[in-house]
Amino acid sequence: MAKKPATAITPTRAQDYSQWYQAVVKASDMAENSSVRGCMVIKPWGYAIWENIKEILDDMFGQTGVKNAYFPLFIPLSFLEKEAEHVEGFAKECAVVTHHRLEQSQGGGLEPAGKLAEPLIVRPTSETIIGDSFSKWISSYRDLPMLINQWANVVRWEMRTRIFLRTSEFLWQEGHTAHSTEEEAVKRGEQMLDIYTKFVEEYLALPVIKGRKSPAERFPGAIDTLCIEAMMQDKKALQAGTSHFLGQNFAKSSNIKFQTRQGAEEYAWTTSWGVSTRLIGGIIMAHSDDNGLLLPPKIAPSHVVLLPIIKKDGDNSMVMEFTEKLAKELREQFYHHKRIGVEIDKRDMGGARGWDWIKKGIPLRVEIGPRDIAADSVFVGRRDRDRRDKESFKKDRFVGEITKILDEIQENMFDRALCFRNENTKKIDVKKDFRDFFTPKDQSKPEIHGGFALSHWCGGEECEVKIKEELSVTIRSIPFEKSEEHGKCIYCKKPSEKMVIFAKAY
Amino acid sequence: MAKKPATAITPTRAQDYSQWYQAVVKASDMAENSSVRGCMVIKPWGYAIWENIKEILDDMFGQTGVKNAYFPLFIPLSFLEKEAEHVEGFAKECAVVTHHRLEQSQGGGLEPAGKLAEPLIVRPTSETIIGDSFSKWISSYRDLPMLINQWANVVRWEMRTRIFLRTSEFLWQEGHTAHSTEEEAVKRGEQMLDIYTKFVEEYLALPVIKGRKSPAERFPGAIDTLCIEAMMQDKKALQAGTSHFLGQNFAKSSNIKFQTRQGAEEYAWTTSWGVSTRLIGGIIMAHSDDNGLLLPPKIAPSHVVLLPIIKKDGDNSMVMEFTEKLAKELREQFYHHKRIGVEIDKRDMGGARGWDWIKKGIPLRVEIGPRDIAADSVFVGRRDRDRRDKESFKKDRFVGEITKILDEIQENMFDRALCFRNENTKKIDVKKDFRDFFTPKDQSKPEIHGGFALSHWCGGEECEVKIKEELSVTIRSIPFEKSEEHGKCIYCKKPSEKMVIFAKAY
Repeated sequence: MAKKPATAITPTRAQDYSQWYQAVVKASDMAENSSVRGCMVIKPWGYAIWENIKEILDDMFGQTGVKNAYFPLFIPLSFLEKEAEHVEGFAKECAVVTHHRLEQSQGGGLEPAGKLAEPLIVRPTSETIIGDSFSKWISSYRDLPMLINQWANVVRWEMRTRIFLRTSEFLWQEGHTAHSTEEEAVKRGEQMLDIYTKFVEEYLALPVIKGRKSPAERFPGAIDTLCIEAMMQDKKALQAGTSHFLGQNFAKSSNIKFQTRQGAEEYAWTTSWGVSTRLIGGIIMAHSDDNGLLLPPKIAPSHVVLLPIIKKDGDNSMVMEFTEKLAKELREQFYHHKRIGVEIDKRDMGGARGWDWIKKGIPLRVEIGPRDIAADSVFVGRRDRDRRDKESFKKDRFVGEITKILDEIQENMFDRALCFRNENTKKIDVKKDFRDFFTPKDQSKPEIHGGFALSHWCGGEECEVKIKEELSVTIRSIPFEKSEEHGKCIYCKKPSEKMVIFAKAY
Repeated sequence: MAKKPATAITPTRAQDYSQWYQAVVKASDMAENSSVRGCMVIKPWGYAIWENIKEILDDMFGQTGVKNAYFPLFIPLSFLEKEAEHVEGFAKECAVVTHHRLEQSQGGGLEPAGKLAEPLIVRPTSETIIGDSFSKWISSYRDLPMLINQWANVVRWEMRTRIFLRTSEFLWQEGHTAHSTEEEAVKRGEQMLDIYTKFVEEYLALPVIKGRKSPAERFPGAIDTLCIEAMMQDKKALQAGTSHFLGQNFAKSSNIKFQTRQGAEEYAWTTSWGVSTRLIGGIIMAHSDDNGLLLPPKIAPSHVVLLPIIKKDGDNSMVMEFTEKLAKELREQFYHHKRIGVEIDKRDMGGARGWDWIKKGIPLRVEIGPRDIAADSVFVGRRDRDRRDKESFKKDRFVGEITKILDEIQENMFDRALCFRNENTKKIDVKKDFRDFFTPKDQSKPEIHGGFALSHWCGGEECEVKIKEELSVTIRSIPFEKSEEHGKCIYCKKPSEKMVIFAKAY
């Protein structure tokens, strides 16, 4: 029997998914845990992905009339307290600033001094502080709609953290809008969910399910929370973006009033919506394999690495000349409005060099040796294929076709993820089947279960709570696209008009 | 006698410079003070300027091999304490996080709970936290140079704040590099100062003096602080950017060691360098006039506003068609790699509409009425000229020449600022003249004084302190370009080899 080839990542997904995830993050050199509890350091390869996410989304927001602004990092405690549900949702996990200087203590070290009259909370989200500005900026229907977005860091003091997916500090964008009618606000919330859907599917190659949260899973203070949910390779759900319709709740607590065209005074209708560095966790968990990261070309910091075969103590001028020329030709090509990103790696480290780039998930690897040059060819490896499955291209053909190849990889990644989700989504009508679906077959691998269950739910919170208690499974989404058929609640058997997505979740 | 025309900003610069500044910020709708002490809200017009600054500088950094990354917002107190001068420099003004949740108090409200074992400082700058990462990332000379930059918010608990110039929270970039030799680190520090100089002069139209700080004015923990200083219209100096050579100080306190090519172990040599949202304050104070903001075209969020003359209850289709067509043609033009930014303002509010855009500092205003259309012309006002001094252009000529006009405005603004600085910089050799130069002639206007004094200084801290005490004047810069002549210290008359720039400062 042939020996199975070693993989670059230990353990593999099948051996230990959670450890595999950490190993991929490390091997790709994207980020690491910092010395500060729960906070991560985003390294250049990971940060460049975030910059790409920002640039693309920012442009999409801008096209709908949204403008960027910046609001204070600190929220006075009294602001947070204005909306009762909201403060309850964040009080348990927030960083509190209580002092504004340090003083020599009697023991010799420094200690906090200059106690603040009112504690400040490091923003976990900015509805209340932005609401304070909106209340000053808005006085007439002419000032509406107000469409503002902020790119910022936020802090939620998570007890169990996992890099990119759940960290005490993370980076995100938070959009905040105010409108003169309920209808317009609802529509804006849906529009932003559509943008997230388009972005996540087309750029991150992640198929998502659009829907809304059950009341128990809503954003604290929201009337309605819309969401997109994606399936990871361990069949758990990842919430990839949310858009909240806040009704007049925050307008009332922040006093955002406007004069209508008819001269009456009314509270505005507001929304908020956001995505975060968590998306990078989603990319890793949905696409990567046992050799490391796979990056959708549209979001990759760089598209192709050139690997000239360098001879120690030899004359490498010909291979380097060919390499530099190829790099120049590739960089002149555009891939979705940006120039092709090209890396040249001339380190002399044998096969480890190729593995480095496989682990980093660069879409294309190009080997260049004397024989290739003689044939005016290059030897190309695609990250979405087996690493030994390489193809020889005439150089000019490769330059001419690179954007087509990248598009193929992008599509291929989306298709695989969609296929995986479809294979692991099941319509379930019987409680026993539902239990089996979410019960690990192998007790030594408690994380392996069925996937997304599409089942009827009566709409009652009691059933939702019981299912969560028994199986650690929650309602991830009440999908917009749903069968209209009638049925019976998977838990209590009461009549139900809607199927929902149940899953374990990040 | 003709009545002097009213100005849009009250008070004027001559009446009260400090109040004028606040009024310009307000009238241009760039930013405002928030409800959180010392923190500002940057509104879309102001934030778009910051985004332009970011984009341009980021590209310049990238071309020198610098990569972006992101580090934690919080710094453990023990990290800050590692470098004695450093912590002393920041202990008096820092936000201290002491708790990680809120709990119901006996009085009914919420109070901080969950006390942290070690207080966390909201980063005032990140040498110590980035140094912690560098100590893990660097082990061999092969890992050097390490060239990292971060775009982030920082907090310094300033007692007296002024929007953009001195706020408790501000936005900045901080570059941090590590090198294997002292020479290379020194060179990198100089290179970054050169980039700042090029950026501030070419894009912000602000002439600066390159030099170094006196030991008393150095960054806490630095061996050498290089700086660029600009003159504002009240003749005070504004530090527009700094670049610090940190020697091995932070490498020693953060344990950043590397193995040399020869196998020995050595501490790395580090630098740090930054510019902040303060630059926006500099733009305002150097260029604006009594009608509001003037924006250098290369950094303006938008270049031209089209002001079609709209008739209430009339048929405006022709004027709007002409306007839309012109907008389209203008947007097809490129100005320094970006498309021309065009605003269309069709509000029906008479002369107030034009004033709005004058106050916002947009470089060009274009009026479009039926007579202009008949002549296929537009009526153009330049923000760097008197507001009544408008010029008629054939439409096609305007489209063809707009980038040239914008370049003229950019140059004109730089030349004016340079002229102003030259007029208000004086070589002074006599102590009495020096005193007179910095002593207000009119006691009711204590802020009006001479400008930059180029005078000899013995190098002694005592003279520096005395001058500061007597005249509130500090050494802003020991300029790189200096006369080599010998002279006598302006204060103690000891021999001196160097002239320095004395000034009042922001």
